[in-house]
Amino acid sequence: MTDPALSREQALIQEIFAPLATRAKGADGLRDDAAVYTVPRGYETVLTVDTLIAGVHFLDEDVPADIARKALRVNLSDLAAKGARPRGYLLAIALTTVHGMDWVRAFAEGLREDQEHYACALFGGDITSTPGPLMVSITAFGEVPAGRAVRRSGGGPGDVLYVSGTIGDATLGLKALRGELDHLDEDAVSYLVGRYRCPEPRVELATALIADARSSIDISDGLVGDLGLMCWASGVSARVHVERVPLSRAARQAISKNGELLAACLTGGDDYEILCAVPVTAASGFETVVRATGVPFTRIGELVEGRGPPEFLGAGNRRMNFEKTSYSHL
Amino acid sequence: MTDPALSREQALIQEIFAPLATRAKGADGLRDDAAVYTVPRGYETVLTVDTLIAGVHFLDEDVPADIARKALRVNLSDLAAKGARPRGYLLAIALTTVHGMDWVRAFAEGLREDQEHYACALFGGDITSTPGPLMVSITAFGEVPAGRAVRRSGGGPGDVLYVSGTIGDATLGLKALRGELDHLDEDAVSYLVGRYRCPEPRVELATALIADARSSIDISDGLVGDLGLMCWASGVSARVHVERVPLSRAARQAISKNGELLAACLTGGDDYEILCAVPVTAASGFETVVRATGVPFTRIGELVEGRGPPEFLGAGNRRMNFEKTSYSHL
Repeated sequence: MTDPALSREQALIQEIFAPLATRAKGADGLRDDAAVYTVPRGYETVLTVDTLIAGVHFLDEDVPADIARKALRVNLSDLAAKGARPRGYLLAIALTTVHGMDWVRAFAEGLREDQEHYACALFGGDITSTPGPLMVSITAFGEVPAGRAVRRSGGGPGDVLYVSGTIGDATLGLKALRGELDHLDEDAVSYLVGRYRCPEPRVELATALIADARSSIDISDGLVGDLGLMCWASGVSARVHVERVPLSRAARQAISKNGELLAACLTGGDDYEILCAVPVTAASGFETVVRATGVPFTRIGELVEGRGPPEFLGAGNRRMNFEKTSYSHL
Repeated sequence: MTDPALSREQALIQEIFAPLATRAKGADGLRDDAAVYTVPRGYETVLTVDTLIAGVHFLDEDVPADIARKALRVNLSDLAAKGARPRGYLLAIALTTVHGMDWVRAFAEGLREDQEHYACALFGGDITSTPGPLMVSITAFGEVPAGRAVRRSGGGPGDVLYVSGTIGDATLGLKALRGELDHLDEDAVSYLVGRYRCPEPRVELATALIADARSSIDISDGLVGDLGLMCWASGVSARVHVERVPLSRAARQAISKNGELLAACLTGGDDYEILCAVPVTAASGFETVVRATGVPFTRIGELVEGRGPPEFLGAGNRRMNFEKTSYSHL
């Protein structure tokens, strides 16, 4: 029962969001404006924030539960890349007049499902109104053994480069939604669109990354650009063998009909796969541990000495050039 | 020097924001997408997020440094109310096309000054674009001795109610900016507008609150409404003697010309003063400690048994009724 003395904002919080906070002791039932969080001894906190804006990061017509899941998952992906286990999140949301109680309920339902799946809880947040567009900003936090977080900056020459999953599906999914992909079978379209709408953060990889990776990043703005960031942060360059970059059946089907889509896959955004660098001596142990998680993982190249942009070697070992190396929202 | 290989987003981060992160070891120079934060042994983390949207929470014409300061300070105010010492923050910002490099530089300059003053640092964030309006969302975190955070929910009947500073200035400042206040002298207008544009988080009070307060809240949506939240969370009611509510000279001047502005002061938003409840037995010790901080603090009433909304007793002990008990952005 909601107290009749509460404002609409408080009623929304108590009725719809407080049930998401029952397992977060420090959230005090969302009756407070700030959350208390206790990190276990020997652990550090990893914090990250990502904002999604309607029309920029998702489509206006996307269903509320998908928007919620995407907003949470892009953050969990950041935590996974650092080797952190998710613990909780704060939700800042700006609603327009078209986002009423039913919309908010469906949005919260998306969060509820993902909280269960990824073992984290809502600790607090902020609800406000906006003339538009709808905005969802999630700050997620997780835990990593002290001193063991995997930064982007730790890679060295010779390290083996791996990526999880398949690359380019989400950017093709967005193209499909925009009607820019022809001649793909229905299953392929549905798969690609699903990958765009709902990324799969690779939280199962955290332990393996902590054990063996020296540098790690989640691919949110495209493999080419994000590998560039890893190289820049680590003070190295890289060489990638494009034929080794893992592509889904649907992506291969699309590329077989239009070869230019290969570059789109390598530079498009929203993959939310893990790219990491592992020292050669640790590679075989790393592969064994990763195999046990069941997450597909592929060796695509290596870090090399130098400061130049990463080389992507295509057919006949020819270097590929990209018009645009990464997706940028600015 | 910014690396020419970086995207516009990364260049902005490295050139303008990375200097704000030099004292945040776990920010890794903002070369990463997630921050690592280590809480000292025996302490817990307090986390809070607040979002400001142009045209809703500040005026489009406000200068960038003021917007930055307000965005940070409203969060530091939440931390102070819980008794937490600020440590760091994450910044999520959505820029429109009219917010170019110069605007962002001036915005960051506002953050830099406040970071120094409040001893905290930028740990990370997210920059994106929006068709508008400008959005700034800050997640701040601070530290409190384990188990000592002051919640809203701990108040009990008989506790003495205190507020810091003066009440209602900010809401009058906003009215002045809208041309709704006549006959005020220039100094009064300038003071009130300053209180609206730049709140003063009461971080100095954290220690005293931890020592003696059982319930505490920062007044962001008006004294009447926020006291109502404290009462609701604590399962009590309250009695406030309106003539004891501290008003600035400027507010008294405004009210003397228009008596209805008293209700506006009590229910208006953006005070960012601390409202707290202290057991009678601790009140005298609390007052001594608070006096040493130099922050003005006034006893305005007490918590009482019951579940009804707080009573505000005006002239002749008559109960005041408010059309609207708090400011709501929803």
